[in-house]
Amino acid sequence: MNTVTVDLGEQSYPIHIGNGLLDMPELLTERTSSTDIMVVTNETIAPLYLNKVQMAFRSHRVENVVLPDGEKYKNLEELNRIFDLLLKKRYVRDCTLVALGGGVVGDMTGFAAACYQRGVPFLQIPTTLLAQVDSSVGGKTGVNHPLGKNMIGAFYQPISVLIDTNTLTTLDDRQLCAGLAEVIKYGLIRDAGFFAWLEEHMDNLLARDPQALEYAIRCSCENKAAVVSTDEREAGMRALLNLGHTFGHAIEAGLGYETWLHGEAVAVGMILAARLSARLGWMEPTDVARVEAIIEKARLPTLIPQDVTPTRMRELMFVDKKVRGGKIRLVLLQGIGSAVVTDTFDDHALDTTLEYHLNPAIR
Amino acid sequence: MNTVTVDLGEQSYPIHIGNGLLDMPELLTERTSSTDIMVVTNETIAPLYLNKVQMAFRSHRVENVVLPDGEKYKNLEELNRIFDLLLKKRYVRDCTLVALGGGVVGDMTGFAAACYQRGVPFLQIPTTLLAQVDSSVGGKTGVNHPLGKNMIGAFYQPISVLIDTNTLTTLDDRQLCAGLAEVIKYGLIRDAGFFAWLEEHMDNLLARDPQALEYAIRCSCENKAAVVSTDEREAGMRALLNLGHTFGHAIEAGLGYETWLHGEAVAVGMILAARLSARLGWMEPTDVARVEAIIEKARLPTLIPQDVTPTRMRELMFVDKKVRGGKIRLVLLQGIGSAVVTDTFDDHALDTTLEYHLNPAIR
Repeated sequence: MNTVTVDLGEQSYPIHIGNGLLDMPELLTERTSSTDIMVVTNETIAPLYLNKVQMAFRSHRVENVVLPDGEKYKNLEELNRIFDLLLKKRYVRDCTLVALGGGVVGDMTGFAAACYQRGVPFLQIPTTLLAQVDSSVGGKTGVNHPLGKNMIGAFYQPISVLIDTNTLTTLDDRQLCAGLAEVIKYGLIRDAGFFAWLEEHMDNLLARDPQALEYAIRCSCENKAAVVSTDEREAGMRALLNLGHTFGHAIEAGLGYETWLHGEAVAVGMILAARLSARLGWMEPTDVARVEAIIEKARLPTLIPQDVTPTRMRELMFVDKKVRGGKIRLVLLQGIGSAVVTDTFDDHALDTTLEYHLNPAIR
Repeated sequence: MNTVTVDLGEQSYPIHIGNGLLDMPELLTERTSSTDIMVVTNETIAPLYLNKVQMAFRSHRVENVVLPDGEKYKNLEELNRIFDLLLKKRYVRDCTLVALGGGVVGDMTGFAAACYQRGVPFLQIPTTLLAQVDSSVGGKTGVNHPLGKNMIGAFYQPISVLIDTNTLTTLDDRQLCAGLAEVIKYGLIRDAGFFAWLEEHMDNLLARDPQALEYAIRCSCENKAAVVSTDEREAGMRALLNLGHTFGHAIEAGLGYETWLHGEAVAVGMILAARLSARLGWMEPTDVARVEAIIEKARLPTLIPQDVTPTRMRELMFVDKKVRGGKIRLVLLQGIGSAVVTDTFDDHALDTTLEYHLNPAIR
């Protein structure tokens, strides 16, 4: 087992990573003194792992909320189901919420914990690769609004994160690959060595080699923890974690939230960011080719879907919360392992990048 | 004009108190660099003061949300109307929300600001006495749930609080008296000198003497600021501000949130707290008489309404968030100007106090 610490002063917490951690009850209970536990999970995960969590907390009062599975349920209405049960069961301030599932479950549970009685503790048990390397770490919580993703939420840190790599054995291939998009992102924004390792070991990851997965998750969490520790509330450096995300959110919104997985949209977004960076002369074309190659190797999409036009892409990018003072702020690359947040790029280059990308005919 | 500072490190902010402050645009704009302003107000306040606020921000983009007036609209559905407009108008992270109204408007606007894009700044302009001396200061924000008051919310501080005592000229008598309940509370919990001043000057306050009102508001804000600065998140001392509130919330919930005003319920709650304290031998009966006398003088109710039985009171008190480990924690008095938070009181004394209070026949 590896433990990575997210260093946030009084709000610091450990991320435990290893195979079979869900069978170690002392890890689940180590940081909670609550007698009342509310597990939030979804219909896919409940039959697989809920029993293990309930066993770990068998000397506590445990209630469950089983949400429907999917990004489209990440909304205020479903969130309210968690509040309903907490109040019906008379849970008070010293309860602890447990998020058992992927990013949707983690974001909703974290936000419910942030708001219930103005804040109760919560524990993250992410069961998808995406949640393990990204959404469960760093305290971004929230729900979607019909007009935008993650528009309602809070920065709220868990008491700990428990990553059992064994849960990845039940993850379907498409979800695994979507998670790899965020793993690749860490290499791209701040860890050229890790990126090179990924180029070498992508096949091992796709074959779900336990050692390779544990190493990739640990490197991802270390990189994310380092960024979050410096800038919890995204005043500066943390924005680097949004590489590919402004493009990606526009793709997700353009298609409707159920068509593509988040990681798939981010994968295409990272390619767009790399291409725009190259068009601006900030990045070598050979490095853009490496970005495209690794994303393809990870069996992720590389093209914006045809039905999201460049005009629609732009429009949707503007509603994204990374817009300041009417200008789009993007994370761009200055080579592999080096990212910058900027709004001082040639706007025309953005249009050209979108047009070019969407019209392979003129490529 | 007086200025009281709420000292919370980087989140410190000023409370400006004075007559006619809404006509001083530089005070409204002094702490915001946003170009986009969203004013949240209600149907009662909009015709009276919205224009002044819009004038102050006339060089900004200003949008308004006018909510229906009343505690029953302090819910997730109405909150969502604020998010809807913010997103429809494409407000981004550097906008500022302005709460113009009483406690309901302030709590909802503050919570909307806490959650919108995970946090945007907000300015409090409280227009009722209750909001001026209590809810606008200290960062408690939130909405009600059908099963409990303020069950969903956040601790989130405003950038400043602007109290124009002139707005009290349009406040109806009942609302003014409800606000006085919280004013009396500060004297009771930590300021015996202020309590004595209130005994002397209650008539001036009821006659809306501007000097008397400004002094009472300043003393209240100073007391509240001192408590909040020590304990922002209610880990300890801040709970003293809940004197009368556990009883009061039970009365409000028992009657339904539209029958009594919050301050009216708190007034009766403070009498119950004083009586229970006397029954436990912690407080002199002569001091209980002073509490009853000042509340009566402030034209506030002194008896639990007949249709909320002692059993129902107890039941509703248990769902209140101040319950820990199955025990009710109450704020009780050790004399005027001295309060304690405790769960180590004789439970039977609580029952007797409720029974006795509700059956004047056996008094």
